[in-house]
Amino acid sequence: MSHNSFGHLFRVTSWGESHGPAIGCVVDGCPPRIALSEADIQPWLDRRRPGQSRFTTQRREPDQVRILSGLFEGRTTGTPISMIIENVDQRSRDYGAIADRYRPGHADLTYEMKYGIRDPRGGGRASARETAVRVAAGAIARLVLGAAVVVRGALVQIGPHAIDRARWDWEQVSQNPFFCPDAGMVPGWEDHLDEVRKRGSSTGAIIELHTSGVPAGIGAPLYGKLDAEIAAALMGINAVKAVEIGDGFAAAAASGEQNADAMRMQAGHIVFDTNHAGGIIGGISTGQPIVARFAVKPTSSIATPVASVTRAGENAAVATTGRHDPCVGIRAVPVGEAMLACVLADHLLRHRAQNPD
Amino acid sequence: MSHNSFGHLFRVTSWGESHGPAIGCVVDGCPPRIALSEADIQPWLDRRRPGQSRFTTQRREPDQVRILSGLFEGRTTGTPISMIIENVDQRSRDYGAIADRYRPGHADLTYEMKYGIRDPRGGGRASARETAVRVAAGAIARLVLGAAVVVRGALVQIGPHAIDRARWDWEQVSQNPFFCPDAGMVPGWEDHLDEVRKRGSSTGAIIELHTSGVPAGIGAPLYGKLDAEIAAALMGINAVKAVEIGDGFAAAAASGEQNADAMRMQAGHIVFDTNHAGGIIGGISTGQPIVARFAVKPTSSIATPVASVTRAGENAAVATTGRHDPCVGIRAVPVGEAMLACVLADHLLRHRAQNPD
Amino acid sequence: MSHNSFGHLFRVTSWGESHGPAIGCVVDGCPPRIALSEADIQPWLDRRRPGQSRFTTQRREPDQVRILSGLFEGRTTGTPISMIIENVDQRSRDYGAIADRYRPGHADLTYEMKYGIRDPRGGGRASARETAVRVAAGAIARLVLGAAVVVRGALVQIGPHAIDRARWDWEQVSQNPFFCPDAGMVPGWEDHLDEVRKRGSSTGAIIELHTSGVPAGIGAPLYGKLDAEIAAALMGINAVKAVEIGDGFAAAAASGEQNADAMRMQAGHIVFDTNHAGGIIGGISTGQPIVARFAVKPTSSIATPVASVTRAGENAAVATTGRHDPCVGIRAVPVGEAMLACVLADHLLRHRAQNPD
Amino acid sequence: MSHNSFGHLFRVTSWGESHGPAIGCVVDGCPPRIALSEADIQPWLDRRRPGQSRFTTQRREPDQVRILSGLFEGRTTGTPISMIIENVDQRSRDYGAIADRYRPGHADLTYEMKYGIRDPRGGGRASARETAVRVAAGAIARLVLGAAVVVRGALVQIGPHAIDRARWDWEQVSQNPFFCPDAGMVPGWEDHLDEVRKRGSSTGAIIELHTSGVPAGIGAPLYGKLDAEIAAALMGINAVKAVEIGDGFAAAAASGEQNADAMRMQAGHIVFDTNHAGGIIGGISTGQPIVARFAVKPTSSIATPVASVTRAGENAAVATTGRHDPCVGIRAVPVGEAMLACVLADHLLRHRAQNPD
Repeated sequence: MSHNSFGHLFRVTSWGESHGPAIGCVVDGCPPRIALSEADIQPWLDRRRPGQSRFTTQRREPDQVRILSGLFEGRTTGTPISMIIENVDQRSRDYGAIADRYRPGHADLTYEMKYGIRDPRGGGRASARETAVRVAAGAIARLVLGAAVVVRGALVQIGPHAIDRARWDWEQVSQNPFFCPDAGMVPGWEDHLDEVRKRGSSTGAIIELHTSGVPAGIGAPLYGKLDAEIAAALMGINAVKAVEIGDGFAAAAASGEQNADAMRMQAGHIVFDTNHAGGIIGGISTGQPIVARFAVKPTSSIATPVASVTRAGENAAVATTGRHDPCVGIRAVPVGEAMLACVLADHLLRHRAQNPD
Repeated sequence: MSHNSFGHLFRVTSWGESHGPAIGCVVDGCPPRIALSEADIQPWLDRRRPGQSRFTTQRREPDQVRILSGLFEGRTTGTPISMIIENVDQRSRDYGAIADRYRPGHADLTYEMKYGIRDPRGGGRASARETAVRVAAGAIARLVLGAAVVVRGALVQIGPHAIDRARWDWEQVSQNPFFCPDAGMVPGWEDHLDEVRKRGSSTGAIIELHTSGVPAGIGAPLYGKLDAEIAAALMGINAVKAVEIGDGFAAAAASGEQNADAMRMQAGHIVFDTNHAGGIIGGISTGQPIVARFAVKPTSSIATPVASVTRAGENAAVATTGRHDPCVGIRAVPVGEAMLACVLADHLLRHRAQNPD
Repeated sequence: MSHNSFGHLFRVTSWGESHGPAIGCVVDGCPPRIALSEADIQPWLDRRRPGQSRFTTQRREPDQVRILSGLFEGRTTGTPISMIIENVDQRSRDYGAIADRYRPGHADLTYEMKYGIRDPRGGGRASARETAVRVAAGAIARLVLGAAVVVRGALVQIGPHAIDRARWDWEQVSQNPFFCPDAGMVPGWEDHLDEVRKRGSSTGAIIELHTSGVPAGIGAPLYGKLDAEIAAALMGINAVKAVEIGDGFAAAAASGEQNADAMRMQAGHIVFDTNHAGGIIGGISTGQPIVARFAVKPTSSIATPVASVTRAGENAAVATTGRHDPCVGIRAVPVGEAMLACVLADHLLRHRAQNPD
Repeated sequence: MSHNSFGHLFRVTSWGESHGPAIGCVVDGCPPRIALSEADIQPWLDRRRPGQSRFTTQRREPDQVRILSGLFEGRTTGTPISMIIENVDQRSRDYGAIADRYRPGHADLTYEMKYGIRDPRGGGRASARETAVRVAAGAIARLVLGAAVVVRGALVQIGPHAIDRARWDWEQVSQNPFFCPDAGMVPGWEDHLDEVRKRGSSTGAIIELHTSGVPAGIGAPLYGKLDAEIAAALMGINAVKAVEIGDGFAAAAASGEQNADAMRMQAGHIVFDTNHAGGIIGGISTGQPIVARFAVKPTSSIATPVASVTRAGENAAVATTGRHDPCVGIRAVPVGEAMLACVLADHLLRHRAQNPD
């Protein structure tokens, strides 16, 4: 049991703080002989990198990943892959003012209640900066899954503004700074975020993930269920407060007939008419696309003062200046994809272990 | 890594199928010298037991638990606690008809895609019957947590009918067959369920869990986060499709100020004005009540025929007669409570390990 | 992390005490569609069963195993296999006298120092009785490994009396009550044990295990090394104090040339001239027979009084009457085999997970 | 399950190869608020560092450790501690000749049989160079254990030359390049090693570890037994072939009376007359010194040619020049200490978790 590891056979161990010299992770259990270099990882990190639009934090991090182990002549050797990303643009002075008080919504208080100590520089270990290593691990997970499996995500809601799903176009996701599949929503989100930032406020978001190519049979009946581990993986991303699979909460209001995904034979294969289940039944993949959604709360760091307390036990309003994403949910898209890819790679290996053919 | 174990230090290993001779679990890691007998467990099992009202399955199971190990003179010894519940009222004939076809929404297809074999009797391992052992384990978890920690749940929605939260009264939960905290909603749910059953249909539900007495500091910063593990625990219950903590999905639509839980000093302690966070920030408990909700899909077993396929690869409509809960969400209340109690007990031990004082 | 589980993918969780109603285990991760019934397990249990000669304890236990889950129509389904063995011949009165004092060499003192409580009836959890469930799990492990892999053991030393390895004959192992491969040694061991018992004493033993058919490549480079996990598995058997692989301690006295296992090509395959390595190099199997030895201390329960102390803190000599094996090492042969089979089955699944072809 | 992690609550994840840019490890689960800097770790690394006498490899590695995470203002924060040691003196040209053939006794063949690929530069992952990170982790484990617990080791045999235990003097261990507690043996070992090297040969060794200050009650009854995990930890060190606790293999030849450690009360505490058990009974510490021994085979890299085969499947004698320890057992002393310290720290945390007081 490790609090900073993730996965069982495809296993990621993460380390590092926002303002330490570097962050990184060790990926253990990767199959051998997979072609791998930094060039396979960097593009995914670049999608998550801050400072690429006016809608994300202005911290300038090149997020250059280096692989320190586990490769020989460009291929994985089956031994642990250590990756490191240096922190370049730390500005600890930004955070001096908040070292002696607890920012509401941040882990300042809870870390200190737990450990009696915390690293206040940039949120320390609790910083969303750590999610970069998840993206790096996810890039390797994609190689384990192979080209036939595609994991992709999109932002479907910012604040109260949800996309029009009828206009969903995956091509659009890379065409705007929001990973938005609905081109018609982009101007509305721009206006919303400009207004939010002007107000010194922040806003939440909902991300939706889809897979294609995941074969039927991946997962486990109980406890290690595919949906249970996806839930943990997504809920474990900073600021996430909710996860659903397929119809999710809406399924509660449905009748049995409405919720049933009818099946029939087509060209010798079983096909489904609908996908209310989100590609997972009984903890195991059905072969349909896996569909998961997760909600990110509004960034806790806001310029508007909120009532709080100091470490010395006095009341004190806290306003957070520094550099922050007004909507941390935007950059959660590549992070969510990466976590889903890691869960799938892990379950693929677990499935293979128990099922020889 | 075990697919049928749950927890790290307070660890539950579950086994058994719906129509085998028995189901059971092994609870490992329980602290020593805790007073324990079957009488501490049976009342919790009785709450989950089927056949107690016309709204749950008519399968008659006494669900008598026996403890086979781990006790000496009525106290735990620190060694594994093995519990067994015999299956009494199996009627395999009910299921003969569905052995050769896949019931939509059930794990029939996915188990068979995974393992090339499945036990079709009563759903086999995928049956909700297995959840009895979770409740038994949860009863022990409550003893580990101690009397100061209370974990309780309520049904807050059946089908489209949500309770009026203004009328929430915990006293009511034990006064009706729905674990409903809103007495005014009970007649409406009765009508809804009668109508659902008459139609040969089923309906979904939403359950809400609350704790009191969980101290601040329980959990972990990343990956082993308290909310991530609660999400896995609840999503891992049969038929669950969604989980949220605190404001959950609603947080996505909120602004930073709306979502912030302001703090202030009161009689030397930090108190919060609100609990949007649901008692967990940065993966660690704040000391506020932990609030989690999860959605259960409508029971997949319905009398209304749904298009499906046979094992032989032919189209065939499937209608499930047999004995079923029209709303499996009702009995999910004690199961959800038990899973939450197990997660908390596990994290309490994990916290104690790393933090000597 | 569970203190009472063993293995990662082929995972055994053990429970039960010497004088409780039963002992048992749950085997999780077993591949599906393996033909399995109690008849596959019982013969292995019968080899370990007490009371089969005058050289083992006279406790009469039929050791009938029942499988409670994980099977359908005689084949494994991939779900956990729960096995139970009832305790039939408990005589707690035998142990009343030692409940208030600590038997030297037994875990009485250490359990109580750890947990502040212990089950004194027959040694409670620390009883060698628990090893029956390991043998049951090992029987399933053998089925996972398949018929091509053979795991067998022999007793090579009792007290100071070592066999003559030049007379080693595997056929002899089943022909005497000692699992002795050297027929010429059997009378000497009979005399030794009769004399030991007459003296109210006990004696130690050394067991040697061999495999055939284990392919090259099973294991792991570091930490999860095949030899490291064999060492843990064997050292974890009651009363074991030493483990070695291949030449073991003798390798320390050898020169590099003496210890080298020369290789050459033969009919297109690599063959070794010697097997000093005991079939494992760098934590991974070489394809040669795996050879492991372990030492069992003399049974701590002896009729000769030994100075000890009471729970009340007074000096008191302890003599153990009751029913005991004068040489617990004899029955350790099938237990050692079972543990080795479990480690190999676990590593086979782990290997398959990481290496798709 | 990770093949490159070690421990459960005090958990070390290791990475790196002999000739990559660096090696390192992540220590997760360390309690917070422990004063820690590189200066606490470096002295232990310096003891293991190569090139300090003519009896170890002449590879010149400064083995400077850097801590990259987990600290704030000189104290641990409870988050993962990432440590890195750069490889400075790689000379890959040394190994070019052996890339296409398998060195007997080395993991060349087995890695390739397992993974279909290996890093031949300096043994890759299988190099003893990796043990530096174990020493670094062990230094942190010592801080977790606290100053009252002392873990130390000594070399007690090189080749056939065993020390005279009557001359054991811990003070001597730091006074000679062999960690030898018997000053009278040092000249003999010098001669032996000079002769071995001149011959182009190598030699084995036996290391003995002792603790003081480990309280009674640390460990676990079964499977996670303290001795079982020590056995795995020591057997998992490169080139180790045997492990024993207390009297070890000699216990097999003893009678029950000889092996019994008599107890009596002394000034209100239980004291033992002897320590045949090596400080562990029933998998749990007795409070006596823990005594463990392990055997290291002679270095496989020898200048004397040994028959072997090439990757192309042809016979070929292999002689290893390069830079090697003629007796890799010497530097195994600090490595063994570190592994034992890690096991104890892990079990201390595990004990604390289950036992609140």
